[in-house]
Amino acid sequence: MTLPDHIDGYGPVQAFAAVDARTVAKSMGAGRGPETTPRRGSSEKLRETLRAAILETGLRNGGTISFHHHLRDGDDVLRRVMAELADLGFKGLRVAASSIFPAHACLVDYIRSGVVDRIVSSYITGPVAEAISAGALPTPAVLQTHGGRAWAIESGVLAIDVAFVAAPAADSGGNLNGVDGKSACGPLGYPMVDVRFAGHVVAVTDTLLDYPLSRIDIAQDLVDLVVVVDTIGDPARIVSGTTRVTEDPDGLAIARLAAEVIDASGLLIDGFSFQTGAGGISLAVADSVADLMRRRGIVGGFAAGGITQGIVSMFREGLFRVLFDVQCFDLAAVASYRDDVGHLPMSASLYASPGGKGAVVDRLDVMILGAAEIDTRFNVNVTAVGGGRIIGGSGGHADTAAGAKLAIVTTKLASRDNPKIVDRVECISTPGESIDVVVTEAGIAVNPRRKDLIEVLGRAGLPLVSIETLRRLSAQAAGRDAPACRPQGRIVAVVEYRDGSVIDLVRQPLAG
Amino acid sequence: MTLPDHIDGYGPVQAFAAVDARTVAKSMGAGRGPETTPRRGSSEKLRETLRAAILETGLRNGGTISFHHHLRDGDDVLRRVMAELADLGFKGLRVAASSIFPAHACLVDYIRSGVVDRIVSSYITGPVAEAISAGALPTPAVLQTHGGRAWAIESGVLAIDVAFVAAPAADSGGNLNGVDGKSACGPLGYPMVDVRFAGHVVAVTDTLLDYPLSRIDIAQDLVDLVVVVDTIGDPARIVSGTTRVTEDPDGLAIARLAAEVIDASGLLIDGFSFQTGAGGISLAVADSVADLMRRRGIVGGFAAGGITQGIVSMFREGLFRVLFDVQCFDLAAVASYRDDVGHLPMSASLYASPGGKGAVVDRLDVMILGAAEIDTRFNVNVTAVGGGRIIGGSGGHADTAAGAKLAIVTTKLASRDNPKIVDRVECISTPGESIDVVVTEAGIAVNPRRKDLIEVLGRAGLPLVSIETLRRLSAQAAGRDAPACRPQGRIVAVVEYRDGSVIDLVRQPLAG
Repeated sequence: MTLPDHIDGYGPVQAFAAVDARTVAKSMGAGRGPETTPRRGSSEKLRETLRAAILETGLRNGGTISFHHHLRDGDDVLRRVMAELADLGFKGLRVAASSIFPAHACLVDYIRSGVVDRIVSSYITGPVAEAISAGALPTPAVLQTHGGRAWAIESGVLAIDVAFVAAPAADSGGNLNGVDGKSACGPLGYPMVDVRFAGHVVAVTDTLLDYPLSRIDIAQDLVDLVVVVDTIGDPARIVSGTTRVTEDPDGLAIARLAAEVIDASGLLIDGFSFQTGAGGISLAVADSVADLMRRRGIVGGFAAGGITQGIVSMFREGLFRVLFDVQCFDLAAVASYRDDVGHLPMSASLYASPGGKGAVVDRLDVMILGAAEIDTRFNVNVTAVGGGRIIGGSGGHADTAAGAKLAIVTTKLASRDNPKIVDRVECISTPGESIDVVVTEAGIAVNPRRKDLIEVLGRAGLPLVSIETLRRLSAQAAGRDAPACRPQGRIVAVVEYRDGSVIDLVRQPLAG
Repeated sequence: MTLPDHIDGYGPVQAFAAVDARTVAKSMGAGRGPETTPRRGSSEKLRETLRAAILETGLRNGGTISFHHHLRDGDDVLRRVMAELADLGFKGLRVAASSIFPAHACLVDYIRSGVVDRIVSSYITGPVAEAISAGALPTPAVLQTHGGRAWAIESGVLAIDVAFVAAPAADSGGNLNGVDGKSACGPLGYPMVDVRFAGHVVAVTDTLLDYPLSRIDIAQDLVDLVVVVDTIGDPARIVSGTTRVTEDPDGLAIARLAAEVIDASGLLIDGFSFQTGAGGISLAVADSVADLMRRRGIVGGFAAGGITQGIVSMFREGLFRVLFDVQCFDLAAVASYRDDVGHLPMSASLYASPGGKGAVVDRLDVMILGAAEIDTRFNVNVTAVGGGRIIGGSGGHADTAAGAKLAIVTTKLASRDNPKIVDRVECISTPGESIDVVVTEAGIAVNPRRKDLIEVLGRAGLPLVSIETLRRLSAQAAGRDAPACRPQGRIVAVVEYRDGSVIDLVRQPLAG
């Protein structure tokens, strides 16, 4: 049949050539990253080695590679990939890792040797943080929030050439999940965003199962290649830091007080939603909240996060109808994600993107936050202390604070001889306008912007004090004033707010 | 703090303004459709009326609106939306509906009144098809495949201004599912693609549940507005056409023969994958295949589709480990999707997009297809007969034929006095190069391209005949030769292959 070159009301006609031609729409690709080649057949995505897969991606010097941190300090995929890249002679790569842990110390060498010259992350601790603070990177590291990272990827600001996914289970078609296999880590919330926009996606797994997986967290239409290695890491090290309820009397007092704030706020009714980190005081707050819910027969709508054993217990007890889970913080959470109906996976975008059509953080009633420092304008620092020493970063801190109706920072007045409430934080991670209440063992300070809260908490007889009073008591508890420490030397990290704007800088002290 | 305007190694600095400023990445949006405004709060997505929601989307005359067909001939959302649009005076809209049924007859009036002047769909039957065939549209309708539609949306070729989602259940945050509510229809595979790329997404539901839903098919980060109506349709009418195993002796003979072809092909081993439509012969093939699998203890990998009660029975019996479900064809499938682990949702992209990184159709071993006509080059017509009369369209026909290792067309030689095997089909829906075998009551014709199949089927003693012989027998059975019917009049529809190329046209007969 002869086709016209042009059809009125349709436009230019590209004639069918052959079943496998696939030439038309592809060349107009806009929604995805770089053009991709469709694959077909039973095992064409499997590659014998990481090296073969890397070479096939077409990654070039100066490219951007991404990683995720669901195996946290147990992750071995970043190290494996970087070792291959270094061996292959790559230079000038940008590493966009959702978080960086001590397990990723190898990056320090690769920074020194020029394999890596840029880092974008939401949380950096350990040797890599130390190296960045010491000025090892030729360019400033970029510290994003979890939601800011998602939006940077979605909006094209952070273009990823190759996303590497540590997949606890994979099949030959490229379907991935976080529930099967010896390294099960739970939902793969962070790479769920990366794989939709990256030019190439390489899954690295230690458990290849028959096609198709019977649970799928990331589907085959988003994955180019699959590589099987002996281990992707150590899931026993998913649990990082404190995950036990505090036994410190001051900590317990703070937790009780925080629960009283929640109670008095009027938010603790059916449909209540809640998020907390995995710190000792936060877990104690969850315990106190659970007690209140239990006694009053309150059924919460959801808990979100970073899911922990404590939250799983509340969910299984029926205190929450749903868990929104971007990442499991312990193996009890992993098992619950595998087994429990209503324990839902949540992409980083659904969790916290400020550019989507409504993130879960925007539906939070109460968020319990920690702080390295908080200042009299309620700004919170979880990024850098002691004169430019990077200690982590926002993660979801700024996202949840912005979204929650009631963002509570719980903190003791001092940590050893460091005052926690200060005149001015060294680095702003989360702007004060999004923090509502600070709870300490010496009382509760409410952000003056929240006149409504001041009234209801006051009426409830809670011990309200000014943030200035807390600052003074904090200095007394520490035995010293906080030095006005805001180094003026070289910029080693740019701190982005969730919308991509720059909220602060991490600088080195001036030499001399 | 004063920020520099520019940071070496970072670039221009956009300083943080306020928590709700959200000005930076958003203005560089690339991955999504038109810029969207993030929302916050408990019920800000709920709108009292469809009209209020439509007005808020900013839809303009000439815009493109999309619909999906999971409620099939029971859908009432398209009609409701179109009535509002007409009442509001919209003109020149393009309707991108994944399929159009008799229930959507209202479109005929809207075409006549100029509310709608373009239609893009994968399957059109009933009054709308008749009107298009009669030349009612000022421009040719565009008939895509299901996978072609997904890829057109993903690649930006088909830009949707407003996607309307018929949601059996929704919450105030915009989470949607197809399992709860009185109009449960199963996974929402088609709009899963639309909502990722549409400028605005309006969910229309008759079941608003507490936030958050405990099952989510489409998440809130992709949905702008939610409107509650009294009913979105009649789920009893999801079942369309034949869904019972044929009782016709010829039909049963064809089904047995098709099962023998599958058996002889060597594909019927553990891991076997299978898809079939809901026609009477197809269902009989599934029965025969089930018998073979049962007798030999074969455990298939997956069945895909359009899931039916028969396929669910096979799955529950353990004959398949997984179901990939883009859309339920009956209420038994809906219940299974709700209840059965391993009955997985599948987006139209995962199902069949030719531009993704590997669709499920590419992993199919065997596909059982129907045909209105098939010609001696194995081209199949499911689009137009009788001189430009549109009778449906490809749906997933061309997608599954291209992907499956063994694409079998089952057909009787004649339907009443219409020969089914002809010299030249009136309209090519699926190119012959992707069809492997034609099974009739008079024997089996294998595509000469498949020399391997000719050999194994011959060796198995199956009754192989040439397609030319089938054509002759077909004419005899019908009692007449097929008229060489390929009208040369005005173009009323452009038939696109899955990659967006034009594979054929539907024309009206020349006047006079």
